[in-house]
Amino acid sequence: MVKAAIVGATGIVGQQFLVALKNHPWIEIAALAASERSAGHSYKEAITEAQSGALRWFCQEPPVEEVMAMPVQNATEMDISAIDIVFSAIESAQAKSLEPKFASDKPVISTASAFRYDDDVPILIPGINSEHAKLLAAQRKSRGWKGFITPIPNCTTTGLAITLKPIYQTFGLNAVVMTSLQAISGAGRSPGVLGLDILDNVIPFIPGEEEKVQRETQKILGNFAGTSISPARFNLSCTCTRVNVREGHTESVFASTQKACQVSDVARAMREYSGSSGEADLPSAPKHMIIVFNDPFRPQPRLDRDAEDGMATVVGRIRKDTALENGVKYVLVSHNTKMGAAKGAVLVAELLIRDGYIS
Amino acid sequence: MVKAAIVGATGIVGQQFLVALKNHPWIEIAALAASERSAGHSYKEAITEAQSGALRWFCQEPPVEEVMAMPVQNATEMDISAIDIVFSAIESAQAKSLEPKFASDKPVISTASAFRYDDDVPILIPGINSEHAKLLAAQRKSRGWKGFITPIPNCTTTGLAITLKPIYQTFGLNAVVMTSLQAISGAGRSPGVLGLDILDNVIPFIPGEEEKVQRETQKILGNFAGTSISPARFNLSCTCTRVNVREGHTESVFASTQKACQVSDVARAMREYSGSSGEADLPSAPKHMIIVFNDPFRPQPRLDRDAEDGMATVVGRIRKDTALENGVKYVLVSHNTKMGAAKGAVLVAELLIRDGYIS
Amino acid sequence: MVKAAIVGATGIVGQQFLVALKNHPWIEIAALAASERSAGHSYKEAITEAQSGALRWFCQEPPVEEVMAMPVQNATEMDISAIDIVFSAIESAQAKSLEPKFASDKPVISTASAFRYDDDVPILIPGINSEHAKLLAAQRKSRGWKGFITPIPNCTTTGLAITLKPIYQTFGLNAVVMTSLQAISGAGRSPGVLGLDILDNVIPFIPGEEEKVQRETQKILGNFAGTSISPARFNLSCTCTRVNVREGHTESVFASTQKACQVSDVARAMREYSGSSGEADLPSAPKHMIIVFNDPFRPQPRLDRDAEDGMATVVGRIRKDTALENGVKYVLVSHNTKMGAAKGAVLVAELLIRDGYIS
Amino acid sequence: MVKAAIVGATGIVGQQFLVALKNHPWIEIAALAASERSAGHSYKEAITEAQSGALRWFCQEPPVEEVMAMPVQNATEMDISAIDIVFSAIESAQAKSLEPKFASDKPVISTASAFRYDDDVPILIPGINSEHAKLLAAQRKSRGWKGFITPIPNCTTTGLAITLKPIYQTFGLNAVVMTSLQAISGAGRSPGVLGLDILDNVIPFIPGEEEKVQRETQKILGNFAGTSISPARFNLSCTCTRVNVREGHTESVFASTQKACQVSDVARAMREYSGSSGEADLPSAPKHMIIVFNDPFRPQPRLDRDAEDGMATVVGRIRKDTALENGVKYVLVSHNTKMGAAKGAVLVAELLIRDGYIS
Repeated sequence: MVKAAIVGATGIVGQQFLVALKNHPWIEIAALAASERSAGHSYKEAITEAQSGALRWFCQEPPVEEVMAMPVQNATEMDISAIDIVFSAIESAQAKSLEPKFASDKPVISTASAFRYDDDVPILIPGINSEHAKLLAAQRKSRGWKGFITPIPNCTTTGLAITLKPIYQTFGLNAVVMTSLQAISGAGRSPGVLGLDILDNVIPFIPGEEEKVQRETQKILGNFAGTSISPARFNLSCTCTRVNVREGHTESVFASTQKACQVSDVARAMREYSGSSGEADLPSAPKHMIIVFNDPFRPQPRLDRDAEDGMATVVGRIRKDTALENGVKYVLVSHNTKMGAAKGAVLVAELLIRDGYIS
Repeated sequence: MVKAAIVGATGIVGQQFLVALKNHPWIEIAALAASERSAGHSYKEAITEAQSGALRWFCQEPPVEEVMAMPVQNATEMDISAIDIVFSAIESAQAKSLEPKFASDKPVISTASAFRYDDDVPILIPGINSEHAKLLAAQRKSRGWKGFITPIPNCTTTGLAITLKPIYQTFGLNAVVMTSLQAISGAGRSPGVLGLDILDNVIPFIPGEEEKVQRETQKILGNFAGTSISPARFNLSCTCTRVNVREGHTESVFASTQKACQVSDVARAMREYSGSSGEADLPSAPKHMIIVFNDPFRPQPRLDRDAEDGMATVVGRIRKDTALENGVKYVLVSHNTKMGAAKGAVLVAELLIRDGYIS
Repeated sequence: MVKAAIVGATGIVGQQFLVALKNHPWIEIAALAASERSAGHSYKEAITEAQSGALRWFCQEPPVEEVMAMPVQNATEMDISAIDIVFSAIESAQAKSLEPKFASDKPVISTASAFRYDDDVPILIPGINSEHAKLLAAQRKSRGWKGFITPIPNCTTTGLAITLKPIYQTFGLNAVVMTSLQAISGAGRSPGVLGLDILDNVIPFIPGEEEKVQRETQKILGNFAGTSISPARFNLSCTCTRVNVREGHTESVFASTQKACQVSDVARAMREYSGSSGEADLPSAPKHMIIVFNDPFRPQPRLDRDAEDGMATVVGRIRKDTALENGVKYVLVSHNTKMGAAKGAVLVAELLIRDGYIS
Repeated sequence: MVKAAIVGATGIVGQQFLVALKNHPWIEIAALAASERSAGHSYKEAITEAQSGALRWFCQEPPVEEVMAMPVQNATEMDISAIDIVFSAIESAQAKSLEPKFASDKPVISTASAFRYDDDVPILIPGINSEHAKLLAAQRKSRGWKGFITPIPNCTTTGLAITLKPIYQTFGLNAVVMTSLQAISGAGRSPGVLGLDILDNVIPFIPGEEEKVQRETQKILGNFAGTSISPARFNLSCTCTRVNVREGHTESVFASTQKACQVSDVARAMREYSGSSGEADLPSAPKHMIIVFNDPFRPQPRLDRDAEDGMATVVGRIRKDTALENGVKYVLVSHNTKMGAAKGAVLVAELLIRDGYIS
């Protein structure tokens, strides 16, 4: 079994890692770390509110009993010598300083954005750009690390990049325009989105999000050329909004392709897309990367976010677009805290284990 | 005072007409009509639930006491000889047969879509295409009517057409891509949107809506040439979704202009847009047709839908778009049951009264 | 296998029966019936919207593939000669005439209220009043039926009766005051609760609900004495409200007991309550009828409604009440469309099969 | 004009004070104070988010332009020599130390709970217990202050105390059982209620709330006897829950009266209740303290919270209660951030100005 440490284990993303790794066939949770305040306590103590005795457990799934008695270490002083892989669920600012310390010795898979835009850092989605993992060798070399850092994309990027991939490789892309209707869980809990602000409302701005999505999508769909990735060359523009949905990002996509395409061709390319060989067999992989509905009322986040345990991207309303050259438009739903967060990071770990990057 | 009949007076749109006309300086409510079931009762009786005594009054504003004692007539047998204008708040199927009966004698202003796409029927938004009212003369002539039918646009068209107008006239338009996040009030009450279906959810399809918006926007921004309107020639594509917001449609717009434009130019064109002369003085007109925010967190439907009593269109997030040629993108909020419905129809009546079409 | 017919199979409760019976170890779905409009079609056709091709499937669980090809019969002309049990998911008005026709020949388990208050009709909750099943013999005899009708309680009664049972049998009850915060799914879909009415709102009245809860709770906790049930003699008063929750009724209960009791005694009585022998082994039974939290922030409907697949009643906030004599107060959550509807009816069927009432 | 300082002016309650005092006929805003961070800035600067330029203005009403240029002082170093009254909108912990400093010199009206339970401190609701103001003389004397502290009640107490008052004075009270369904605005913004936690949910616990309501209601309805208040002697028990409503607390009340009473008597007592002479004429006072509906679907928080600009308490569903001796039950809605917060405090100020406590 690969021994994993979870850093930021008491937060919501950390807890999602615990859920994603429960009963995992290849990986076992070997260490937990959080802030100094939690250090020295058992995990259960660390997430118990002193005054009321309430458990600060934030996942819809029940608390993971297996880790309740495990000690929580101080993330800044953690001993990772017996660890094979570090899952990092910390904020970007802290990741900037802490992840390199871990990476000097061990592989780090991170949900933070701190290193996503560095030239020697791939942003992996297994089945979409698995070959970008080869960049990790260059990273190790240039940084002199025994380990490496590989972040997953922003949760809004994930579904967009996955659904654009079969279009891009089959028809080419000129331009993509996207409006997101994002779930509140994407904002986490500190501070998160107040009920007061989102009830009966839409918030039309998520700081930094649009730039992330634009840049990451082009990098993920880019070409790996030996020692670097050249971003995909289509234009991409998006407007990211927040709606009163708990989980599951909805995205309205309009794409202009290079070659003319029929709606039925696009639907088939998505339905048949299965990534490169073997990835569908990874333990956390969905059986179908993309599920395509004909029913025009789908996808809906509440009904479709949990498809294949939140690891499939669900698409519907594929139609001809009449505003763009060779235009096609569709709507997607992607589970932002499963495929788009911890469980997506576990899937990356599985890919890297299978391909010998982690042992 | 112009004497108005409200047809479909017991439904939600009919009630919004009652609110919009309360204390109106030019128009008085002279007759109410609804289905046979209500006929012969006072308005209060007609909207009182027999078993519980509950008032089926659906507006946020208090019930209009002035009409409670008025008799309700059967819409199909209504005598309109003493009426100057008919406001029609009925469903499209019924409008098809009933509105021409009224129009043979009197002006009809309708919220239904039944006649919107006929060549001799204008879709008026005062201040945006007031000159299209001249088409009514052709309509009267071709149909041999003493009155006419003039429908208002679909509520999702309204904000889009208003905000595109200053861009179109200043910079020209090649293409527009729009995703709407529409309020549940837009679906009315029969059947309306069930709480079960929209709670924690987005519904990505509103039957017929996208076609309406595309067609109406091009007609509204089209050119009136003597006896007909030639639609505006830019490409338009949209995806219309429903979100859990009570009132106020949010729209995410991406536009490709013919001439290059700066974000500040677009903002200024919108801010300064005031329609043709005199329209801002109509009793129901907003003082500012378009309000532009710099605050990137605005517009929000809950905070901005009521701007200028729901008659202004509120815009924010004007930015350069990087996917389209000469691209600009923005977000708008428009009150779908004020400017987008009954009160918007009252504004049309005011324009037509001022310009001598109704007397 | 016991062969079951589901009457009202295309509605939401009918669909919940399909889900509850999928892969059932003792019962197989042998016939489906609905209104004349659906008759003669396959189930899939019957629930497919003609115009859009959308599937009108209302459960969160995926559609039950096993029944999609089954024919739907006209409920009023159904042949039940080869059927062992009829699950009725129809409206009360229709149940009044249709259920007796079925019951003259076969056992009927119903979610409708039509017969709940008849003297020879038990309202069964397995584990709470299983012995009331004996009343079915009297019913058969008095009505001259080969079958019988046994309805389940109103969904708001279920959790209240279950949680009061251990208090009632251990300490006795003088009076109970209850305020419910009910989920919108309890109103079904025709007409159901409009999003417009419940968003940012509470509706303080559910017609008929309070009377049902009061009467049913006293009957369920009543004493079976040979040929009739004498209702439990404590006073019960409730106010039933609707809140914007999809599934899971929350109830705030204040009880005055006959004997003095400590909070810890009440908690223990609830935790240890397991019904009469063997019922926990029925296939759909929860392992724990009542789950008791110490965490004061629980139960919450979204977090706790699915406990033991929606079949457990979840209790928290057990405290001393200072207004009533021997007062105790608590909050419960009960899944209104699982234990409180179809799956609860399946549990009743299991009890009656085990005890030889159905074969 | 009475010169007022608002302490805690940048927070949500502080902003509600600004709205409540805009164009006030007797009181003018003369000083604003907040934390050290805001001190030295204009109010507009203090509430502008540096990075995005967004205005952190939290009220539904538009920002109060009149104060935007006013300087914000550091609350701990504020000079109040030219001030006639201090409105305190700070957290209880800070109020503990800061309010006495102000009160040594000037009258302080506070929304904080810090001093509510002190024997020499009244909790005033004009029209309900205006005579308790006389306790302020005792307070000044015992504490040696030139000013005084008078807090308003917890927002959940307000509607309960108001509606119990006519029952209590007409019929007497034995016991009251109440379940609240509280709006999320009651929790403020720091940390407030997360959308993630309240969407599709009910939270059954609000720390400290039930104790406050029980204690305050008895004090408010208590008897002022020269130098102290003896609490009303009925038993009171409540369960306080949070529901997904923005504004407006709903409370389900069950009361046992001393004298038998008819539902119609209770309704009349509430409808006719108008407080002691003259209070309805205070500038912020509602014309009707209590509005009583016969329509059983009312009150609803979204429809009724704004009655008389949020200053009236709205009651419905008055019915006989069958569980308690001389039982009556009803539902109320009270605006928690108008009558229950800043505007309620302004109403207290008006009472004290009229009666000569402030000058």
